[in-house]
Amino acid sequence: MFKKILIANRGEIAVRVIRACQELGIKTVAVYSQADEHALFTSLADESYCIGPPQASKSYLNIERIIKVAKKSGAEAIHPGYGFLAENPEFTRACEENDIVFIGPPVKAIEAMGSKINAKKIMKKAGVPVLPGTDGPIEDIKDAVAIAEEIGYPVVVKASAGGGGIGMAVAHNEEELIETIESTQSIAKSAFGDPTIFLEKYLEKPRHIEIQILADKYGNVVYLGERECSIQRRHQKLIEEAPSPIMTEELRKKMGEAAVRAAKAIDYCNAGTVEFLYYNGEFYFLEMNTRIQVEHPITEIVTGIDIVKEQIKIAYGEKLSFRQEDIEIRGHAIECRINAEDPLREFVPSPGKIKYYRSPGGPGVRIDSGVCSGAEIPPYYDSMIAKLIAYGRDREEAIARMKRALKEYIILGVNTNIPFHRAVMEEEDFRKGNISTHYIEDHKKYLKEKITKYAIETMDLEKLFREKVFYDNKKIVALAGGLNAYITSVVNRNKLNKKYSEDYGD
Amino acid sequence: MFKKILIANRGEIAVRVIRACQELGIKTVAVYSQADEHALFTSLADESYCIGPPQASKSYLNIERIIKVAKKSGAEAIHPGYGFLAENPEFTRACEENDIVFIGPPVKAIEAMGSKINAKKIMKKAGVPVLPGTDGPIEDIKDAVAIAEEIGYPVVVKASAGGGGIGMAVAHNEEELIETIESTQSIAKSAFGDPTIFLEKYLEKPRHIEIQILADKYGNVVYLGERECSIQRRHQKLIEEAPSPIMTEELRKKMGEAAVRAAKAIDYCNAGTVEFLYYNGEFYFLEMNTRIQVEHPITEIVTGIDIVKEQIKIAYGEKLSFRQEDIEIRGHAIECRINAEDPLREFVPSPGKIKYYRSPGGPGVRIDSGVCSGAEIPPYYDSMIAKLIAYGRDREEAIARMKRALKEYIILGVNTNIPFHRAVMEEEDFRKGNISTHYIEDHKKYLKEKITKYAIETMDLEKLFREKVFYDNKKIVALAGGLNAYITSVVNRNKLNKKYSEDYGD
Repeated sequence: MFKKILIANRGEIAVRVIRACQELGIKTVAVYSQADEHALFTSLADESYCIGPPQASKSYLNIERIIKVAKKSGAEAIHPGYGFLAENPEFTRACEENDIVFIGPPVKAIEAMGSKINAKKIMKKAGVPVLPGTDGPIEDIKDAVAIAEEIGYPVVVKASAGGGGIGMAVAHNEEELIETIESTQSIAKSAFGDPTIFLEKYLEKPRHIEIQILADKYGNVVYLGERECSIQRRHQKLIEEAPSPIMTEELRKKMGEAAVRAAKAIDYCNAGTVEFLYYNGEFYFLEMNTRIQVEHPITEIVTGIDIVKEQIKIAYGEKLSFRQEDIEIRGHAIECRINAEDPLREFVPSPGKIKYYRSPGGPGVRIDSGVCSGAEIPPYYDSMIAKLIAYGRDREEAIARMKRALKEYIILGVNTNIPFHRAVMEEEDFRKGNISTHYIEDHKKYLKEKITKYAIETMDLEKLFREKVFYDNKKIVALAGGLNAYITSVVNRNKLNKKYSEDYGD
Repeated sequence: MFKKILIANRGEIAVRVIRACQELGIKTVAVYSQADEHALFTSLADESYCIGPPQASKSYLNIERIIKVAKKSGAEAIHPGYGFLAENPEFTRACEENDIVFIGPPVKAIEAMGSKINAKKIMKKAGVPVLPGTDGPIEDIKDAVAIAEEIGYPVVVKASAGGGGIGMAVAHNEEELIETIESTQSIAKSAFGDPTIFLEKYLEKPRHIEIQILADKYGNVVYLGERECSIQRRHQKLIEEAPSPIMTEELRKKMGEAAVRAAKAIDYCNAGTVEFLYYNGEFYFLEMNTRIQVEHPITEIVTGIDIVKEQIKIAYGEKLSFRQEDIEIRGHAIECRINAEDPLREFVPSPGKIKYYRSPGGPGVRIDSGVCSGAEIPPYYDSMIAKLIAYGRDREEAIARMKRALKEYIILGVNTNIPFHRAVMEEEDFRKGNISTHYIEDHKKYLKEKITKYAIETMDLEKLFREKVFYDNKKIVALAGGLNAYITSVVNRNKLNKKYSEDYGD
């Protein structure tokens, strides 16, 4: 096995990879920007190296410096996490050139999936269902209009180099289509340096269902079941679950085998995710993410397989130790992404210092956090600070546990989207599994009301906490202890906290 | 379902029961002594009532006051947790008389198992293997000597009303036996008010293996597999695991069915545990605990069944929703009891205030804690403050996760036995599963060395933390944040924390 691995990432995913390495007995090297000097992940790694100023372009995206640290520290492999350099063929190539193992797929697989038009062509050929649309880039507006007429409006125009909802727009008629083509082309050019766009059928309220796969270097590919990730805001996933509430054995097999065909078509290796849109009994290829996903823990819980450790083993050259028939789905898991965002101000990022942090525990709760008490959340990166995962024997138990865990979760000093998650867990359609990618829009009014209620509750807590901090400096160490009593009185407003003396007179 | 439940306990088990209630949508009532006013469990409950001064005899053992609070708050049922009133027939009767449901077995079952001599008789009759010895109480020393000769030395003399190692002594020859009978009789009289003693064969280095059972009100009894609890100090369990490293399908069925027979013989209802000693391929009835056990989480993890929720459902009158054939063991789970004890001073209790608390997370980690940052650990009760549970696909993965989770676990302000657990996780015999109830004695030298090493590491951390607290009062809120950097330098002494400027000059 590798003796030392460098983690080219930060936050919770850096912590996640460090944990996997420690469990495998591998030493870890963290790299960090000046903004992350005191972050949790730097303290958990065996060695940590500062690689630049806060801006990602000068640190976490700085290929040269990361490679330099890897060579200096003697790391034999690099885990890229997700985001940053995870799907950057240039970085993968730099690793290869420097005899460092890249823990991820081969360059060719990353490149094949980097272009959406190209990916769609390969998928179609491999027999993976794709949405009807232009077979290649839009070169002539007239052709595009003709195709749109043929498949029927609405249609969606997408940048071939895009992803995560950027460079993507919907058109409901010819006029809108012409406008959309022009605007999307210009966004694509400025955002990705590639104006290539294409067009396909737009599904009104689909579900987002994705298949996790694992592939070793010897052609063995398995699927670990699906994840439903329909609860999204601006194409950013917020709540994921496994299995999907609508899944059947038959559909899972069909989607799983399609995902395996997708992986085999590009000689894929390591962990990957094939994303599909599901609508009305049918599913269609959306994109393939050639890296670990944020939401991988829910699959780990229902299958019992540690995906990050498998990534490392595969990269080292080990064969998969299980076959498709060994993989069994047990129970139900839900993940809520905890973001430092202000729920009362349209979820704008809320960086700052965490003054008090208390994570939930007990049965069926897993927390993958990048922060702790006193941690600073810098304004330079993604606002996701932790993932709360709840699981149980069935969906109902998983939801019940998530509800109580969200209530236990106390993060003071920065705002978080916990009020949003609490609201969703109580909502009827969610509880019934009636969800789509338009869920948030469809429940706007209800959500706003509930979120406001829970956000105000948190603000009260915050206020009391601040008063304690700023007006009772003498009892510094008693700070958190005293907070318990405050939490008692605020969270449970009607609590009858009877004094012993009152009742018994002694 | 019940609308409101009172929890007649404190600490982690009170938190555990509150969580189960919340997941079932049941309101909770906490009762607490003056020493526990700001404890975590009082803040998580919907209502909390002080029931007396710190001494357990005046609060947590005060039947009258607990019943009074139950009636006043409108609680329909009481969960007793473990210890305190959990196996006190008087309390169970008081609940009955006041029309409050006792979440536990019927009085008769508690009483049947309360006398060890009586329990052994019932078990023998039910076909549950018992150790050879006197069939009833020792009434004549000469008879006892004759029986000891017959079964062979060493023998153990036990108080019939005893438990947990109190009122129990080993004799290796006739002379010792005569002494032991007298001393045990007098201990039994003073500790339990009942001098009745009996004698049985003493096993030198047995394993402690117990079977978890669940029984509903309709005669359905199932076993949820076993727990190995051999790692003990002074008859107190410290590390438990499920499944047992030596278990086979065949043996599990044999022991499980014996436990079910034991339960049926006393018309048992609710959750219970039948404890066995295992030696050389054979197992023998030790005692039955008629309540939830501390170590129940490891069974919950490998079976997926929430035992506390099942207790509540059974007490409400629900039928078991699964049969024996539905119960499947998956993976491996280990529990370490985290005690506030001084590992450098023979593990004497270490009460005090927790100044900094950071719990581990990530895959395969569950924490059932009764404390948090700022919590006060009173000197009046048991020193166990939390349970760290690690699990994985197999024993090796569970141990690897426990190792890294113990390293992540930071509790400052009081001493804990975390250094002990870290030492055991690295020890060769434990890793191989070669354990017995004499494990700690058999590895005295190794353990002392390793424990000292890890305890000193923690002391260094503590020292740096204290300095920060007492000499840098200005940055109160930054306290924990700054600690991260300190932890970095202490835990990883040789870490190369390279400064950005040093390396790149910009």
